[in-house]
Amino acid sequence: MKRGELGYYRATVEDVAPGAKYTYKLDGSDDRPDPASRYQPEGVHGPSEVVDLSTFAWTDATWKGFALEDSVFYELHVGTYTPAGTYAALIPHLAGLKELGVTTIELMPIAQFPGGSNWGYDGVYPFASQNTYGRPHDLQNFVNAAHSQGLAVALDVVYNHLGPEGNYVGEYAPYFTDHYRTPWGAALNFDRAHSDEVRHFFIQNALYWLREFHFDALRLDAVHSIFDASAKPFLAELSENAAALSSRLGRQIQLIAESDLNDVRVLRPRDDCGLGMDASWSDDFHHSVHTLLTGETSGYYADFGGTHPLKMTLENGWYYSGQYSRYRKRRHGNRPDGLTATRFVVCNQNHDQVGNRAKGDRLSALVDFESLKLAAGITVLSPFVPMLFMGEEYGETAPFQYFTSHGDKDLGEAVRRGREREFAAFGWKGGVPDPQSEATFAASKLDHSLTENEPHRTLRRFYQNLLRYRRERKLACFKHLSGTEYPAEKALLVQYLSADVSIAALFHFGDSPSTIRFSIPSGAWTVAIDSADKVWRGNGTSAVAKSFDATSVTQVSMQPRSFLVLESPGRSSGR
Amino acid sequence: MKRGELGYYRATVEDVAPGAKYTYKLDGSDDRPDPASRYQPEGVHGPSEVVDLSTFAWTDATWKGFALEDSVFYELHVGTYTPAGTYAALIPHLAGLKELGVTTIELMPIAQFPGGSNWGYDGVYPFASQNTYGRPHDLQNFVNAAHSQGLAVALDVVYNHLGPEGNYVGEYAPYFTDHYRTPWGAALNFDRAHSDEVRHFFIQNALYWLREFHFDALRLDAVHSIFDASAKPFLAELSENAAALSSRLGRQIQLIAESDLNDVRVLRPRDDCGLGMDASWSDDFHHSVHTLLTGETSGYYADFGGTHPLKMTLENGWYYSGQYSRYRKRRHGNRPDGLTATRFVVCNQNHDQVGNRAKGDRLSALVDFESLKLAAGITVLSPFVPMLFMGEEYGETAPFQYFTSHGDKDLGEAVRRGREREFAAFGWKGGVPDPQSEATFAASKLDHSLTENEPHRTLRRFYQNLLRYRRERKLACFKHLSGTEYPAEKALLVQYLSADVSIAALFHFGDSPSTIRFSIPSGAWTVAIDSADKVWRGNGTSAVAKSFDATSVTQVSMQPRSFLVLESPGRSSGR
Repeated sequence: MKRGELGYYRATVEDVAPGAKYTYKLDGSDDRPDPASRYQPEGVHGPSEVVDLSTFAWTDATWKGFALEDSVFYELHVGTYTPAGTYAALIPHLAGLKELGVTTIELMPIAQFPGGSNWGYDGVYPFASQNTYGRPHDLQNFVNAAHSQGLAVALDVVYNHLGPEGNYVGEYAPYFTDHYRTPWGAALNFDRAHSDEVRHFFIQNALYWLREFHFDALRLDAVHSIFDASAKPFLAELSENAAALSSRLGRQIQLIAESDLNDVRVLRPRDDCGLGMDASWSDDFHHSVHTLLTGETSGYYADFGGTHPLKMTLENGWYYSGQYSRYRKRRHGNRPDGLTATRFVVCNQNHDQVGNRAKGDRLSALVDFESLKLAAGITVLSPFVPMLFMGEEYGETAPFQYFTSHGDKDLGEAVRRGREREFAAFGWKGGVPDPQSEATFAASKLDHSLTENEPHRTLRRFYQNLLRYRRERKLACFKHLSGTEYPAEKALLVQYLSADVSIAALFHFGDSPSTIRFSIPSGAWTVAIDSADKVWRGNGTSAVAKSFDATSVTQVSMQPRSFLVLESPGRSSGR
Repeated sequence: MKRGELGYYRATVEDVAPGAKYTYKLDGSDDRPDPASRYQPEGVHGPSEVVDLSTFAWTDATWKGFALEDSVFYELHVGTYTPAGTYAALIPHLAGLKELGVTTIELMPIAQFPGGSNWGYDGVYPFASQNTYGRPHDLQNFVNAAHSQGLAVALDVVYNHLGPEGNYVGEYAPYFTDHYRTPWGAALNFDRAHSDEVRHFFIQNALYWLREFHFDALRLDAVHSIFDASAKPFLAELSENAAALSSRLGRQIQLIAESDLNDVRVLRPRDDCGLGMDASWSDDFHHSVHTLLTGETSGYYADFGGTHPLKMTLENGWYYSGQYSRYRKRRHGNRPDGLTATRFVVCNQNHDQVGNRAKGDRLSALVDFESLKLAAGITVLSPFVPMLFMGEEYGETAPFQYFTSHGDKDLGEAVRRGREREFAAFGWKGGVPDPQSEATFAASKLDHSLTENEPHRTLRRFYQNLLRYRRERKLACFKHLSGTEYPAEKALLVQYLSADVSIAALFHFGDSPSTIRFSIPSGAWTVAIDSADKVWRGNGTSAVAKSFDATSVTQVSMQPRSFLVLESPGRSSGR
């Protein structure tokens, strides 16, 4: 190969057809896969394969994607969603997801990882789709099928580290720096010597998924571990490129950051010192809801509890805006001023919040049925962009556990021990499933047949109903809540008020029935949703007239763990 | 001691008078000095001393300080400025400095370091003034004396690391983090657990120098090594506190960052995503001038050369605004748009640029007398805030070498070897002075008696004349240049144009006489300064009439390495 500019080596090889396998030898090293491999048919240590992505017959030419205000995400792990664990096996589920009312399927990372079972965060070939999920054309076919059913597809990409096994890229070039440390090993080099080319690699990776696979959005894993003190941050350069592509292709493209920084800079425009992300996950929302529902106080849940964090999060986007955090042992965050609510993606469960528990218990294993409906209500009826975690909609009973299949036995053992140590440090005595065991992976597979039975069927219908309500009432179009109040202990009143329609949602997190007095503008109010209604397998309706003319104060007997949505379709007055 | 909140331990001891010495024992450790010690009479390993700073009789109640647009800095190292190397010994020099025309004496760091000779960047007690320089009251007395002569005093403070010897603070609390790495050892903990209290320590340190010692400004060493990814950066918190103190005290206080980031965010207001620094050093200015004068191309000088970087720097504040840097092997910087020129502090020499050369040669050892005047001209007549390095004004011949006096012999040896290795790596074969040798320190002392002889006396008069011209013509009040042009190879035309006065300065960096045609607005122009004039020991005046009515193009025969300042006092027309 001939040495070119900026550390690139080039060679032209004739007569290479798709399907050809190849490796590199670096100054006499062993055979190494291509860091930019498009496919690793034999896994992370094997040769790369030449793939021609241009031959797929796309049928989504008119597809434009969804704006964030119209979006509802559905996070899904390819390997555990179906028995087969492939892209192809997802396709029969698309119609059901469309019917459920989500708009965007978010795939957990698919970059080639070691073995066949992994969450995806141990990926080492950012351009190669996981071989056990199917071939690259199968992935194209899946996205095309989703688009043909009116569903968008988002992809989780990891630009803060690479996995520990099959990680050869450091032999090629200075992809890593030892100036910073991540919890998962060496930090990627985004601001030191030669970092332009490292940035180029990952920016091209983002554009590759968007352009060649027609993904509609990227979820950027743990941007707080992308260390970059440069004057033009990598993430700003990435968002600039994504915006340019979106405008060239004439379809929606979104970048959504998983950020633990609570820093408004992540969401501010690039020309205003920002990183230009379209949206950010708000973990504060999850923690606020989770602590209210479970009463848990360990780890980062110590920073939450009661209705106050939830109220503040609903009003602002996140809770920690500069206050002292007991868990972090420092002040945290700044105020997300001037942002619309659709800049935040929220959930009551996700792969981390479920999977990083010792046993990977879902919310359905922790709280009762009424609480699951309440969790659904506060999430789907929030002003934010809701995200469901696969199976949440029908109360899946399988856990989502931490699983790996490292071929390197020492590494596998280290991961197993590390997991045990991690939970032992928290005083956990219940044992931890072995991440390396096939049984752990198998136990985490979904059982969609549950939806044929109660109460799963009702829960799914309930989610479907909530999502329809959100869509029909265009909740996200309000952009911001009109206000939240505490009408009673463990209760929240959330109001969306406009000239055309007014909505008042009363959430009750208490464990006993409670009589709640609340104040809403006078008008012809009707009950739109009552989670305690027997139609939703509730304990009985909350005691408010089905339709009433509100004076300034109203009173309702709320069932435990329930919520009530009232609406006044016409112009409401007063207040 | 009693354990209180947030990791603080407290005890009250009765009947302790100023002068009492004390140490702490940490869970049975050896005696340790106080991290917040105000004085270390026996150096970095000895006991701390109780000091009452409130007894000093300040006489500067009416002192208000200088705005940056009126400021000219003079960087000075206490230990080498005088034979005695003390605060007290500086006082007799104040009148001369005032007469020279600088406004602000900037002391290199004075926080207690090991031994008696050190630049100051190995300080380990941020609140304790170096014992070999005098007692804290001597420092107060020096600042008071400066103020009484109409001079401000700035202090260089180091908030990015602590020195390697006598560094016990890590035994007290998590002052350090291993998440980031600095070139000088462990990074200070500004964004991890317990970082609020580390921030508090350094913010209180800044306020302490400003409040108790009446410093007018702080120069923040290497802010690019203050690693802090938090939503409210330490530096923003620091500038917020400094601004509040300035407003409470009713006098000017400035924070000036040494930043290698070329990031406008450092200078933007806090409420606009910025760190709120008042000014930043512009190393690009130094490098642009240095390469033009010396033709050097090694190390970071490879990124400069020719008049283009100087023109761009004069117009913008710094040169690297996103271009690829060969030295850094990546793109560097962003555009410092919307900032006035007085936000940048510039020099043609400073402790780093001189002292980090193998032999510590000053510019006077590298270039001829005419070039020294040219360097003075481009710096003092720039739109920026000029800074002189002690002795530069009279062409001091002593080098400023790297010196240390570590008591730890192994450390001393490591520093010596490290220095040798560093320059050997650049191919330097000339030997490196031993940092640990007393002779190295002694060789770096200034010889003020040089000013009695030529050409030193003339150079000093020349600086004085330039500084007076800058002051009288209020160059900084133009805020921005009206333009720069290349009228010929190695020549720059710099113009300040306003309705009331117009100034055109023509700088010629070429080594041969050159006839230069340039264009200035028509008007009654006179020669204000001619660096080649025999009155400044030049080769003879540059051939332009002393007073002339400029048409659109003018012609002048410039001497090598010279500059000419033309001014039109009345209203200029045309252009």
